[in-house]
Amino acid sequence: MPLILVTNDDGVTSEGIHALADAMRPLGDVVVVAPLQEASAIGHALTLRRPLRVENLRDGVYAVDGTPTDCVNLACAVILKRVPDLVVSGINKGWNLGDDITYSGTVSGALEGALLGTPGIAVSLKRMPVYDFGPSAEAAAKVARVVLANGFPARSFININVPGGTPKGMRVTTQAKRNHVTQIDSRTDPRGNPYYWIEEALDEYHPDSGRTDYEAVKEGYVSVTPLQPDMTAYEVLAPLVERLK
Amino acid sequence: MPLILVTNDDGVTSEGIHALADAMRPLGDVVVVAPLQEASAIGHALTLRRPLRVENLRDGVYAVDGTPTDCVNLACAVILKRVPDLVVSGINKGWNLGDDITYSGTVSGALEGALLGTPGIAVSLKRMPVYDFGPSAEAAAKVARVVLANGFPARSFININVPGGTPKGMRVTTQAKRNHVTQIDSRTDPRGNPYYWIEEALDEYHPDSGRTDYEAVKEGYVSVTPLQPDMTAYEVLAPLVERLK
Repeated sequence: MPLILVTNDDGVTSEGIHALADAMRPLGDVVVVAPLQEASAIGHALTLRRPLRVENLRDGVYAVDGTPTDCVNLACAVILKRVPDLVVSGINKGWNLGDDITYSGTVSGALEGALLGTPGIAVSLKRMPVYDFGPSAEAAAKVARVVLANGFPARSFININVPGGTPKGMRVTTQAKRNHVTQIDSRTDPRGNPYYWIEEALDEYHPDSGRTDYEAVKEGYVSVTPLQPDMTAYEVLAPLVERLK
Repeated sequence: MPLILVTNDDGVTSEGIHALADAMRPLGDVVVVAPLQEASAIGHALTLRRPLRVENLRDGVYAVDGTPTDCVNLACAVILKRVPDLVVSGINKGWNLGDDITYSGTVSGALEGALLGTPGIAVSLKRMPVYDFGPSAEAAAKVARVVLANGFPARSFININVPGGTPKGMRVTTQAKRNHVTQIDSRTDPRGNPYYWIEEALDEYHPDSGRTDYEAVKEGYVSVTPLQPDMTAYEVLAPLVERLK
């Protein structure tokens, strides 16, 4: 049986992670290692300034007082004592789309799997008042089955985003471009001092090819984006050589 | 005069950021907005679970109790009240090379600039017992001058890494691949409970083209890597469509 590590950034008590773990159980031996506390928008952060604790909550379920990336590392080195055959991260409450993926702890859990040499799958669902994790769990199981059966190219991983309601189908997509606009809510505390909340950014996606993750979920499809960690801007290499002469 | 925002992840009291700010002063109006505390390996994290404070330490120098990405956002929205003409991040004590860049707060400061629509430059120096920021400041100024004079492609940014000693020259490079190996130091506290430190990873770089960032600094050159945020694994799109049929 393949060994499947399940993590997330919403924390070990989030319903989404247990829906995902349940969807993986027919496919392999499942171990859950997730942050003790919610760690959304934590990106690919590693905890280096303080040590970490591991708590075995119950059979096959562990909490780490750190980030999703910490969880994957401690799972491999301390809990499983090997790199698993698959890392699955989610189901996140809220999409991780386009250029925003580098903010995401959910996506970073899957990325960390890829960097450690095992396939990773991140799963995120539209933010909604009431969550039905069923279609997301089903999509994750379908993709996981394909990855476990066929393997996946080294250093690559998969980002799944699921629309609300019943999906119309599944689309393989590219990462959308985002036109970022900073939204800050400025407030004054009871002592008269200013403080600032970073707000949810607006849906400012760049009009694109029709094959992006953003367009797929907006049109009611499950988006499946293959990702890899190389961010080199290859088309800028030659002009930059010229300019720096 | 162009408006230049200087940030980092080592914190507002780090020497490196002030060496970088000094190097930028001949090129434009410089404002420093940096984390109050060291935020290394914080990646592209955004602080969403608590509000942020801004402290004006002295003329043109501000501290934010958050991440480098928080700093860039608060700088644009609250301090500068506009997106600057350039975001420069560093000088980091320690390289940010290859696949490790997504862990880096320094690189994420420059990435956030790019996402907000302005060129970003990250600058990192080899970890050493005693730091000479001179060559790094010089390299940053050279690249910044080129970017300010010519502009830079939208959504792109630059990652500079500087070797110890006197560099042999400057090389435009690609992002190296890393073979990650988790290093965990397991310890026992005075009450007999285990705790874990994530260790510095080893230099496990994939043998490559001879044009990577890792190879450049190892051979004594300043590495200048153009980056962009699209992580789509384009060569995996078609096989994935086939497999998911």
